[in-house]
Amino acid sequence: MKIAVDAMGGDFAPEQIVKGAAWAVKRYGCEIVLVGDRTQIQTQLEKYYPEWKNSEDSKITIHHASDIIGMGEHPGVAVRRKKDSSIVVATRLVKDGECDAVVSAGNTGAAAASALFVLGRIKGIDRPTIATPIPTAKGGATLLLDSGANVDCKPKHLLQSALMGSIYAKCVLGKQNPAVGLLNIGEEATKGNEQAQQTYPLLKAMKTINFQGNAEGRDIPSGNFDVVVCDGFVGNIVLKFAEGLAKTLVKMAKDAVQNGGILAKIGALLLMPALKKMGKEIDVTEYGGAPLLGVNGCCIISHGSSNAKSICNAIRQACEYVKKDVLTQIRDNIDKEEILSHDTEIK
Amino acid sequence: MKIAVDAMGGDFAPEQIVKGAAWAVKRYGCEIVLVGDRTQIQTQLEKYYPEWKNSEDSKITIHHASDIIGMGEHPGVAVRRKKDSSIVVATRLVKDGECDAVVSAGNTGAAAASALFVLGRIKGIDRPTIATPIPTAKGGATLLLDSGANVDCKPKHLLQSALMGSIYAKCVLGKQNPAVGLLNIGEEATKGNEQAQQTYPLLKAMKTINFQGNAEGRDIPSGNFDVVVCDGFVGNIVLKFAEGLAKTLVKMAKDAVQNGGILAKIGALLLMPALKKMGKEIDVTEYGGAPLLGVNGCCIISHGSSNAKSICNAIRQACEYVKKDVLTQIRDNIDKEEILSHDTEIK
Repeated sequence: MKIAVDAMGGDFAPEQIVKGAAWAVKRYGCEIVLVGDRTQIQTQLEKYYPEWKNSEDSKITIHHASDIIGMGEHPGVAVRRKKDSSIVVATRLVKDGECDAVVSAGNTGAAAASALFVLGRIKGIDRPTIATPIPTAKGGATLLLDSGANVDCKPKHLLQSALMGSIYAKCVLGKQNPAVGLLNIGEEATKGNEQAQQTYPLLKAMKTINFQGNAEGRDIPSGNFDVVVCDGFVGNIVLKFAEGLAKTLVKMAKDAVQNGGILAKIGALLLMPALKKMGKEIDVTEYGGAPLLGVNGCCIISHGSSNAKSICNAIRQACEYVKKDVLTQIRDNIDKEEILSHDTEIK
Repeated sequence: MKIAVDAMGGDFAPEQIVKGAAWAVKRYGCEIVLVGDRTQIQTQLEKYYPEWKNSEDSKITIHHASDIIGMGEHPGVAVRRKKDSSIVVATRLVKDGECDAVVSAGNTGAAAASALFVLGRIKGIDRPTIATPIPTAKGGATLLLDSGANVDCKPKHLLQSALMGSIYAKCVLGKQNPAVGLLNIGEEATKGNEQAQQTYPLLKAMKTINFQGNAEGRDIPSGNFDVVVCDGFVGNIVLKFAEGLAKTLVKMAKDAVQNGGILAKIGALLLMPALKKMGKEIDVTEYGGAPLLGVNGCCIISHGSSNAKSICNAIRQACEYVKKDVLTQIRDNIDKEEILSHDTEIK
């Protein structure tokens, strides 16, 4: 098992990326190829994985790439122009069979575009989709997809998301017979916009997923479904809203303690262990990244603000993905779902 | 100033409704007509507003209505069939000029349908929209519309929402020159789905609003915009997600304290005053309800779980709406916005 990691992608690259990779080789026994600027990576490896220098069979190796795609760059343009950027080179290692998966915390669009251009789509999948695990009150996570790759979806795209999300939730998130929901504004089959109304009966007709009807906004944090499908416009707004709300609440709570006098400060101190335990349950870094499902290879995209723990967990997800052969399972289930080939029935 | 209040609508009707109405007449000096079952309302009035019996010029009167529309009923069907339901009768009081506004915490769809059928639309507005104030980290609220009335919107509907939301934010929420944002998945004008891409330049061309570009999900809780427009599908999902997330976090925090031993419990006790102060800032009951904008009359729709405080604040909103003559301002601004009459340019 060999994972290509984009060492230059993310707000805290390369330090946190290298540190996370070092943890991962020790914990999961995989091999890692760090892709990016050799000198910078070496400096970090000396800090976090000194074994690298002294051993011929070091589990971490470096693959030099001279260029970087920045967070603000246009994904499609940058991927086409910067052929020697760390994310493109890392993805090519998967295409060429030198690595089994790629992990990046860089420009999300560039990581997705790179995977799409270099690895290509799985036959039967029109558009790859980003599947983000969102921690829930029940422990574990709800997989929300698409969370930003495709903004104007037709019903068939949601069907493909449901199929792929279901397999990922089972294989990587460990859910038995994952409950799939269609994100909507009410429980009844007749609720929602045109897209949702057309999609509902088609999801119901699928054989390889456990469709449990419509999921409302509140069902995501409560964990009533394992997989929730929607188009990338809605998914991305929900995701960013959640991030914003969480950040806002934490800031307000900190301010409340800060301005609450000595008693509030002592109170916060006493409460800290209990809150830390709670924080651990809903810690997004526990998952570390979102898979791009639908491309011919394993590609895990981490948040730009990823720390070493995130990266380490993203690598764990990549290992599980490869071990359980998610790709083959997606291909097999596409063949089983006749409804996906009836293009005329699905608008 | 006379407000018709649906005394039978909501999970805690009629008690909390009557109690809230009693607070409102004392605080805001308005008159209130409670609409619903006379006997039940009287019982509550005796508890919360005993003045009612002894004075000929009581500020609260009762208007009997024999029927109720339940939370689960189909709005359109129920409103047509139950002509003597409390919400329909209350709305008719506004239509007939006996009251200036209607407030209901009952079936949201029924309240909206009732307002649409009985009061009709403002000329130039295609579809009424629900505008929900969401408390933000900056204090005050972001007005999110549409939050559930129209699931498939064309750009022109979003333009109309922007115009109406802007006026409401100025007149009722006290925002000077409210910053309007288009809910989208990125800052650039070219981002988003077809709907968003088409809407952006049209919003930019409007004269009576202060359009500040795209708002991302995170901008709602942070309060970076005063008014955020989107279609009712996205708005309703975001709103229910926020409710669910808030409820989930509170429950998790309570469990953490409960299971955290004696120190955590003492900590929570010491922190309580600071947290209560923070809770007050983001308390949805501070606003009490969401106006249905675009109908010929003031209609404030409160959450089904409204307590007396919510109802009292919803009545305050209704009073402000009427005092500032929001209706006339909407009509005037529609005339000023030439772009709204260019139907051919707007898909």
